[in-house]
This record gives sequence, structure tokens and C-alpha cells, in this order.
Amino acid sequence: MSVLVVASATTEGRAALLEGVAEARRRATTLQWCNVGSTPVDGAAELLAGVEASQVTRDPHQDPIDAVLDVVAAGDVEVLVVGARRRSPLGKLVLGSMAQRLILDSPVPVLTVKPAAGAGGGRGSGS
Amino acid sequence: MSVLVVASATTEGRAALLEGVAEARRRATTLQWCNVGSTPVDGAAELLAGVEASQVTRDPHQDPIDAVLDVVAAGDVEVLVVGARRRSPLGKLVLGSMAQRLILDSPVPVLTVKPAAGAGGGRGSGS
Repeated sequence: MSVLVVASATTEGRAALLEGVAEARRRATTLQWCNVGSTPVDGAAELLAGVEASQVTRDPHQDPIDAVLDVVAAGDVEVLVVGARRRSPLGKLVLGSMAQRLILDSPVPVLTVKPAAGAGGGRGSGS
Repeated sequence: MSVLVVASATTEGRAALLEGVAEARRRATTLQWCNVGSTPVDGAAELLAGVEASQVTRDPHQDPIDAVLDVVAAGDVEVLVVGARRRSPLGKLVLGSMAQRLILDSPVPVLTVKPAAGAGGGRGSGS
């Protein structure tokens, strides 16, 4: 059994990877991660230091959420970790369809995490 | 620090309580739980056996989600556990507004769990 992280190069995707590492330690298990974005995750190896981690390679033509759910359906995943955006100052944000679909369709529990306050609001924040 | 469970007498609310117990054990911490429904949770003491648990009493006139978020804001919570319904056979279900609000507004990670398949689709299933 392992922790499966829905990762990406965004601030949210990186927050998920960090929390996934903590979760794998708590559960004393391995970590799998799937990059659901189209950009490589810079520094993933450093983020994953200290856990036994493997990247799920996916068919780029397959819907990324279907790819994640296929891994879950294969039966070796005990929890999914996914990042979510913080609510905007105007409060208008609704939960992204990706997170919502995963929460609704995953047969295993889903841990939703947000980037630390001030960790950058968008894509590819440098540090 | 503790695990805070958003519980209720529904099948989902009881699933959250059960997963919360497992989560408190994994994190070697205490459990707090808040009944966001209007019906007592039958057999809560049995569900909570083996962890140090306390119930959050809330003002019945306060919005239950605000009550949960107030406890989180007080700073002693490391993860929220909340139940969600399974997608209906017709696939029409969207994530309940309670779960969505908690995921969007909680400053701490939220673990969303679903009842075991066949655990009853509604309220107050007997066993």
C-alpha cells in the first residue's frame, strides 16, 4: 500500500507533494506521484528526499484524473493527496473540478492540502 | 494538536468518525469531534474506543461549519476529517456544500472519506 500524490508544477501541486511525504512517513509506507500537469515538477527529487518514491508515468493522451483513478483502482493506494487553491480575497473561488472529481470518485480517502499562506498565488513561483 | 472530526448521525458522518480514530492513532494524537447534525450520534463512545476523544459542544444557533472553523482557528487542530457521499449511479452528485466550504476555508488539510460500499445510502442505517 502507498500514498498517491496528485502533483504538478503549480504551488498547489508542490504543496501536495510536500504533504504526501509527511503522510507517507506517518503511514510508514511508500509514495507514488503522478504529474497531472504538462510541465515537469522542478526539484521533485529534493522534495521527496527520505521516502521511497516512484513516479507514475501516464499516457499523455489520457485524461490525467482518469490516470490517477486507474492507479487507485489497481488497488495499491491507501490515500490520495491533492492540492487545492486558497479561496480568493473576493471569496469567489469554487473548488476546482479536478479536486472535486477526485474526491467524488476516489474509493480511498482524499487528503486535500493548500499551499502555505504567502507561498505564491500562481504557477511556477521561483523558490 | 489534535484531529478534528466533522461528525453526524448520517452514514457519512459515522464514516468520518471511524476514519478520524484511525487518523488520531497514526498521528499519535487526541481526537475532537463536533456533531454538525441535529441528531445525536448513536454509539459514538464505542466508535471512539481506544483514543483520547472529546466532543466540541456548539451553540445550536451558530452555523455548524462556522463552529468547526472556529475550533480550527483556535489553533489546536492539525487535520480535519469529513465524510462525503458516494457518487450516485446516475453520476449526478456534486460535492456537498458543507464539504466544499470546509475544504476551501480550512487552513489545515482536510481528509475526505466515504462510507464503505454497501454501508447504506442514507440516514440512520441501523447497524
